[in-house]
Amino acid sequence: MNMDVARYVVTHFRVVWQLINQSRRLRRWISKWAINSAISRGPMRPHPLSLMSDYTSWDSLTDRSYTGRHIPPRAQIGLPPVSDVADLFEYLPDGWRESKRSSLLFSYFAQWFTDGFLRTDRMNPRRNTSNHEVDLSPLYGLNRQQTNLLRTGAGGLLASQFIKGEEYPPFLFDCGNLKKKYVGLDMLVPNWLPQDQRSYLFAMGGDRSNVQIGYTMFNVLFLREHNRICLDLAQENPKWDDERLFQTARNVLIVTLLKLVVEEYINHIQGSHFKLTVDPTSFTNEPWYRTNWMTVEFNLLYRWHSLTPPEIQYGGQPKPVKETMFNNALIVNRGLGDLFHEASSQPAGEIGLHNTSPFLVQKAEIPSIKQARGAGLDSYNAYREMCQLPRVTRFDQITKDEDVQCELSKLYRGDVNKVEFYPGLFAEDQGFNSVLPELMGRMVAFDAFSQALTNPLMSARVFNESTFSPAGMETIKTTESISQILHRNVPNANTNYRVSLTRLDQ
Amino acid sequence: MNMDVARYVVTHFRVVWQLINQSRRLRRWISKWAINSAISRGPMRPHPLSLMSDYTSWDSLTDRSYTGRHIPPRAQIGLPPVSDVADLFEYLPDGWRESKRSSLLFSYFAQWFTDGFLRTDRMNPRRNTSNHEVDLSPLYGLNRQQTNLLRTGAGGLLASQFIKGEEYPPFLFDCGNLKKKYVGLDMLVPNWLPQDQRSYLFAMGGDRSNVQIGYTMFNVLFLREHNRICLDLAQENPKWDDERLFQTARNVLIVTLLKLVVEEYINHIQGSHFKLTVDPTSFTNEPWYRTNWMTVEFNLLYRWHSLTPPEIQYGGQPKPVKETMFNNALIVNRGLGDLFHEASSQPAGEIGLHNTSPFLVQKAEIPSIKQARGAGLDSYNAYREMCQLPRVTRFDQITKDEDVQCELSKLYRGDVNKVEFYPGLFAEDQGFNSVLPELMGRMVAFDAFSQALTNPLMSARVFNESTFSPAGMETIKTTESISQILHRNVPNANTNYRVSLTRLDQ
Repeated sequence: MNMDVARYVVTHFRVVWQLINQSRRLRRWISKWAINSAISRGPMRPHPLSLMSDYTSWDSLTDRSYTGRHIPPRAQIGLPPVSDVADLFEYLPDGWRESKRSSLLFSYFAQWFTDGFLRTDRMNPRRNTSNHEVDLSPLYGLNRQQTNLLRTGAGGLLASQFIKGEEYPPFLFDCGNLKKKYVGLDMLVPNWLPQDQRSYLFAMGGDRSNVQIGYTMFNVLFLREHNRICLDLAQENPKWDDERLFQTARNVLIVTLLKLVVEEYINHIQGSHFKLTVDPTSFTNEPWYRTNWMTVEFNLLYRWHSLTPPEIQYGGQPKPVKETMFNNALIVNRGLGDLFHEASSQPAGEIGLHNTSPFLVQKAEIPSIKQARGAGLDSYNAYREMCQLPRVTRFDQITKDEDVQCELSKLYRGDVNKVEFYPGLFAEDQGFNSVLPELMGRMVAFDAFSQALTNPLMSARVFNESTFSPAGMETIKTTESISQILHRNVPNANTNYRVSLTRLDQ
Repeated sequence: MNMDVARYVVTHFRVVWQLINQSRRLRRWISKWAINSAISRGPMRPHPLSLMSDYTSWDSLTDRSYTGRHIPPRAQIGLPPVSDVADLFEYLPDGWRESKRSSLLFSYFAQWFTDGFLRTDRMNPRRNTSNHEVDLSPLYGLNRQQTNLLRTGAGGLLASQFIKGEEYPPFLFDCGNLKKKYVGLDMLVPNWLPQDQRSYLFAMGGDRSNVQIGYTMFNVLFLREHNRICLDLAQENPKWDDERLFQTARNVLIVTLLKLVVEEYINHIQGSHFKLTVDPTSFTNEPWYRTNWMTVEFNLLYRWHSLTPPEIQYGGQPKPVKETMFNNALIVNRGLGDLFHEASSQPAGEIGLHNTSPFLVQKAEIPSIKQARGAGLDSYNAYREMCQLPRVTRFDQITKDEDVQCELSKLYRGDVNKVEFYPGLFAEDQGFNSVLPELMGRMVAFDAFSQALTNPLMSARVFNESTFSPAGMETIKTTESISQILHRNVPNANTNYRVSLTRLDQ
C-alpha cells in the first residue's frame, strides 16, 4: 500500500480504529503488517560498510566498536561553513516553538532511552561504546564489571538509599570525594560542578545518568521497579539466590521497557488512531531479523535537541535548563511523583530548525553537523531515495516555511541536491499529527523497530515463563504504561499523578 | 516430506539426479529446499541457555565466550565410570575399520576446518575462544593483533618463505628460540618436541596449526591461495594499498572456502546423487538466520577421532600418526602436491565406536566424555527427540551390531534411556551411503548449514563485486574444488595430482 494513503487512513476514521484497537487479534495482525512495512522502507542489515573503512572487510563486518552506516560515503566538497549551517538551528527573534503534541516527559524519555545504545565514542567519532541492544545500560552499566558495582549482592537488589521515604541510588561522592568503589563507573562529572551539587550525584550505570533531572528521574524510577520486581520474584521463588533474582528481574525489566517503547513511546510519535502492539515472538521469518548494529545515521537523526525548551517549569516556576543539569537535589527535594506530574504537564519543544537552545547549538548541533561531515554522509536527497521517498527537486518540497526555503537555498547556492543530511532532516515539516518530519520518521521506524524487536529476550525460545518466571511474566503482561510503573513506586500510591508523553490538551 | 523417504530418493535414481544436477536453476531450488528442511529439524537460535548458567540471563544471552547449548541440562546420576565408556572407543582385537567412502584428506579437511570455530577454552570447558564464524582463523589468527603479526605489510601478502621452489609460512623458531615477534600467536609447542622438529614449525594463525601435517597442509595451501589472490587483485586494482588488498583477498578466500564446504565437503558427507549448491543470497526470510553461537553439542559431535587411522601412508611407507605430528619436515621434503595426492589415495577410518587410536582414546575420547558430563548433557534419546527422530526403546534400534548392543546394555544396566549423548552418537550405524550415523548427520546439518550460510560475506547487500572486486568474484565463481586450488598453487601445474575427499574406488 502507498505509505501516504496508509498514513491518511491511520490518522483519520478515529471511531473505526477505536473499534479495531479493541480486538486483540486484529490489533496484532495489523501491527505486524505495519511494522514489517515500515522496516521494509530501509536497507537491511548486515550493512556492507561501517565507519572503519570505505570498503568491506572481515573486520568491518564483525567489529561493532566501529559505528555502522546505511549507505556509502561521498566527498564533502562545496559545503557551507559549519557555523552557517548551525545558524539554521538558532532561535528566531520570536522565540521557541512548543511541540503541539509532546510533553516534556517525552523529551526526558527519548534522551534516557536512546542514550542506552546511541553512544558515540568521545575519543573517536568513528567508534562507539554501544552494546547495540536495548539492555537498560543507563541503569545497569555497559558491562558486568559496572553492573556488579551497582548491586547489593543480596536478593538481586540494586544498591539504594531512602531519602524522605523514597528510594534513590547511592550517592557517588562522600565528603567531596568520589567513592573509590565507583571509579569503574566512569561517570561524567564536570569540573565546574560546585561541591553541593556533587554531593547529590547518584552512582548509576550510564556515564551520563546525572546529566539532567529527566534522565535521572527515569533511572531512579527503573531502579525502584527493578527492586520491586526482585521482591516479587523472591516471594515466588524463595530458593533463588541473589544472582538469579537479579538476572530475572533484569530480563523482566528490559522486556517491560521494550513494550513501553512500542506501545507508549512509538504510538505517541506516530500519532495514529491505530495503536501498535507488540507480539514478541511473531517475527520469525523477517529478512530484517539480523544482528543489531547502530548506524551513524540513526545516531544523528536522534539528536532531538530542539525538544528541550529553554526553561522548564519546576514547582510552578520557570528554571533555565542549565540549572536542572547535574542537580539531583531538585529531584530529592520534591520526590518522583511530583516531578513526573509536572514534566507531563508542560510542553516539550517542537523537533525542527530554529528551535534549539543557544547553549545546545554550541554544545550539540555544531558537533552533530561536524560528525555528519566527518562520516562523509551522503546528501539529504540520497537518504530520501534510500527510504523510497521521491528526491526533492525544489526547496519548497522540503518545507512550506518560505523563510527556511530561502535560507537553505542561499546556504546551498540554489542546489537542492547539495542539502546535507543533518539539516535536511530537521528542515522538513512535521507529518500530519506526527511528532517527526517525514524522512526522520521513516528512518526512526526501520532502525528502531528492527533493533527493538530483535532483542534476544523477545525471541521464540526465550520469551516464556522459564526466562521471566510466572510472576515476571505477569508484570510484563499487565504493564502498559509508564504511569503504572510510577504509581507503584511512589510512597503516595493513592495520589493520581499525570504521567504522559502527550500534552494535556491532546 | 518424510526424511527417510527423501534420503532414499536422493541416494537412488542416479541417472535422474545427474540430469537434475545439470540444471543450475533446479539444483539451486532443490538445494534451498533441502537445506531449509535439514535446518528445520533442529532448535533455532537464539538458544535460551548457554553453559554460563542453568537459567537465562542478559549475560547468558549476549556473552558468547560461554559456549551455547541446544537443550537444558539434566543431572548426571547413575552413569557408568568414564573409563568404561571410553572402552567403547578402543580398537577390538581385529583392528581398525577403514571408511568405505572417505579418503584421509577428508579427515584432514574436517579437522582443519572445524578447528577454526569449535574451540573449547583450555582453561574453562564452559567457555570457548571461538569467533563463532567461518573466518579462516586457522590461517589468519583469532584477532587483528594476531593477523597483523602474519602480514608482510605490502601488497596484502601474508608473510612466507620459499623452500625448494614452494611457498610456506615463515618459521616460528630461530636457532632454537621462539621468534619474539610471534609470541602473540600463542602457538602450541609441546615441551617434549625435539629441537629439529621445532625448527620446522611454522608461524600461523591457529594455535594448533602445527599439530599434524594434514592441518598444516591446508593452512599452507590457503596461504598460497591468499597470496595468489592478492597478486590477482593488485593487477586489477593497481591503486589499492596493502590493507585493501589484504582484506579483499580474505573476503574472497572465506567465501571460496564456504563454497567448498557445501559443494565438496558436505556433498561428500551426505553421499547423495543430488549435489547441493550454494546460492549465497537466497536465504533472506529464514527463521534460522540468527547470530551464530557454537553449542557444546556441535562441538562434541564433531569429535571425529575415529577418522584418524593408526598409521598413514607416507611416501608409500606406513608411519604412525604420532610421527606426523608437529613434523613439518615431512611436508617440506616432498612438497604439497605429492602430499595431497597421497592423502587422497588412502582411506580415513570409519566414524564410529571401537575405531579410535589408543593414544586418542586417552587424549581425546576421555576428555570428550568428561566434557559432555561436565556440561550436564541430556541423554542420547533426548537429543533424538530434539531432532525429531523417534526415541529408541531397545538397544537394537541404535545399531545392528549385536556386540555393541550388548556392551551398551551392560554399561547402562539395560536402560536404553540412560545411554549418554556422546557414546550414543557414535554407536549408531552409518546412514546408507553416508559418512555419518543418523543422529550425528542431522545435528551436523542444522548446525553447519545455519552457521555457514549466515556468514556476513554471503548476505544480500555484501555478496557482490564491491566486496570481492570483479577478479575476486571470478575466483569465487570458478573455484569448485580443492583440487583446483591445489593445482594452481604448486610448481608443477601440469602434474595431475589426485585431490579428493572421496576414496579412489568410489
